[in-house]
Amino acid sequence: MNNFDSVRPIRWSREGLFLLDQRLLPGRYIELQCTSAVDVATAIRDMVVRGAPAIGIAAAYGVVLAVQNSYQENPDNWRDAIAKDINILAASRPTAVNLFWALKRMAALMVVDGEDPVPRFEAEAITIHDEDVTANHRMGELGAALISEPCNMLTHCNAGALATGGYGTALGVIRSAFAAGKLQQIYADETRPWLQGARLTAWELEQDGIPARLIADGAAAYLMQRGMIRWVVVGSDRIAANGDVANKIGTYGLAVNARHHGVGFMVVAPTSTIDMSVATGAEIPIEERTTDELLNFQGVAIAPQGGVAWNPVFDVTPAPLVGVLVTERGVVHAPNHEKLSHLMAGAG
Amino acid sequence: MNNFDSVRPIRWSREGLFLLDQRLLPGRYIELQCTSAVDVATAIRDMVVRGAPAIGIAAAYGVVLAVQNSYQENPDNWRDAIAKDINILAASRPTAVNLFWALKRMAALMVVDGEDPVPRFEAEAITIHDEDVTANHRMGELGAALISEPCNMLTHCNAGALATGGYGTALGVIRSAFAAGKLQQIYADETRPWLQGARLTAWELEQDGIPARLIADGAAAYLMQRGMIRWVVVGSDRIAANGDVANKIGTYGLAVNARHHGVGFMVVAPTSTIDMSVATGAEIPIEERTTDELLNFQGVAIAPQGGVAWNPVFDVTPAPLVGVLVTERGVVHAPNHEKLSHLMAGAG
Repeated sequence: MNNFDSVRPIRWSREGLFLLDQRLLPGRYIELQCTSAVDVATAIRDMVVRGAPAIGIAAAYGVVLAVQNSYQENPDNWRDAIAKDINILAASRPTAVNLFWALKRMAALMVVDGEDPVPRFEAEAITIHDEDVTANHRMGELGAALISEPCNMLTHCNAGALATGGYGTALGVIRSAFAAGKLQQIYADETRPWLQGARLTAWELEQDGIPARLIADGAAAYLMQRGMIRWVVVGSDRIAANGDVANKIGTYGLAVNARHHGVGFMVVAPTSTIDMSVATGAEIPIEERTTDELLNFQGVAIAPQGGVAWNPVFDVTPAPLVGVLVTERGVVHAPNHEKLSHLMAGAG
Repeated sequence: MNNFDSVRPIRWSREGLFLLDQRLLPGRYIELQCTSAVDVATAIRDMVVRGAPAIGIAAAYGVVLAVQNSYQENPDNWRDAIAKDINILAASRPTAVNLFWALKRMAALMVVDGEDPVPRFEAEAITIHDEDVTANHRMGELGAALISEPCNMLTHCNAGALATGGYGTALGVIRSAFAAGKLQQIYADETRPWLQGARLTAWELEQDGIPARLIADGAAAYLMQRGMIRWVVVGSDRIAANGDVANKIGTYGLAVNARHHGVGFMVVAPTSTIDMSVATGAEIPIEERTTDELLNFQGVAIAPQGGVAWNPVFDVTPAPLVGVLVTERGVVHAPNHEKLSHLMAGAG
């Protein structure tokens, strides 16, 4: 039986951490081995692995590698080298909060005494990874339940198995909706400049036999105008306490258009994405990446090289444009500070 | 003195028609020679030349080539071969109405008697070309006059010198605004899938020393949210009698966002773009081009090759979202059927 869940971007084994190199998809399927925290930080910065939950999981394993290496070199004072490695991991990308959440959770194990620390760090990273996949399946069910009848949907970027431990956030809902007979077709924005939609979303949905149709980012509003979709479903890199949603650049313009056309706007993210320490989206750091992503493509100049460009890679959708937020702890309609406080206070 | 008007995509000479090959910009500047109507139709279809007014001008010269060739072969019955050539030119692209407008104007010369028909066809094509450049300068002045103080603006696709006989429609306004000290910076959407903004707009503005900054299409709404632009300025491929505007895919989503953010939305197009024979935008044929433009880039696969894509290359912005239409005959605020009827009735 097809459970629509065949893609895994992060693999932990006795030999270390293996990350599916997402820069090479869809042309090549190659795993990159990481044997140190610095390897992992470099892989995150260079987007071998990307997507807020996946970054968090990879960073957790990065801490395990740091502990392994440090304990092997210096069993008595293994803690000394760890703080530096955690800082290197924390500096890899600024916007997704799941990175800091995972590092904080791993760092909490530093205070535990006992013999060889590696097993408990390893167990915690594996737990973070497993919890993420479980959360995604749960969010898939909750999100699919919001879809009343078979329809077409649109997604942006890749909030899929490749962006998580597996199954995906937005694409988890897409997978569950398809399994429940509620998805006819998913449209995927190609998502410039990194083409996550073309290279990753179209690829991973093809692996699971889910019918996807690729469009240019500029075609999304036309799709809505023609009544071709009922929902926009996206992930998130960080959600502020008031419900403002940071996500891949382009998400905000989609949200404005969804509201204009009466199309549903669903954000799917685990509670590890919710950052109650930032009051509003204005406080979320928005990463700007190299303009090379706009001026060149695979070594070919696609714009005058003397030209200038601006490449912010995330934007913030104000909470009033978010129709519904799906988390593993439940569904929040029209999220605001009160509702998110209540949701987060419900932590086990 | 810099008149910000150095780029010409169409050159007519004794040796025939020379079209700047816009597929090769910004990397290479190569003119393609056309010696027959079929050459010109192929160049239009393959986007050697593109942009509604430029397509019309190129087609007019295509008719001159048809007449030259036919008259040379058969001076007594030169008209016989022309109808077929005009049909081939008319079938080259469906959305821009300027193509049909120019062909109709050229075809009107068929009924004139007299000796060698070539000079009158040639003179008419040159007149169409000259009138276009003159109209663009006039629209530049009219549009720039609408801008009350120095500001940043955003444009989509290329409605520049390269899309016209010269100077440009939307970029004509940008040029005139810059010359008048009213433009601080122009942001250019890269405009997927064909990258007219990156490859053409950024290039032609660089030729004239106008400061342009390239962004991904998905960053436009974020730009508006941050208050970084005051106007969106675009061209058009066809305007219906009620003021609905067909333009490059992505324009409609920008118009929705401009309205949401209180940003001005200016359409700049000569009256040859206004098609009073179509009541609303729903009647304008929207060209869909090959999905290869989304699945591959310069021979490199950027999406799974078994995947499907949808590639409509124009959309329609309803008249209520058009703040102002600038034509060579004057400025129309909040265009509608009555105002456009009045404008078009004012023809000389």
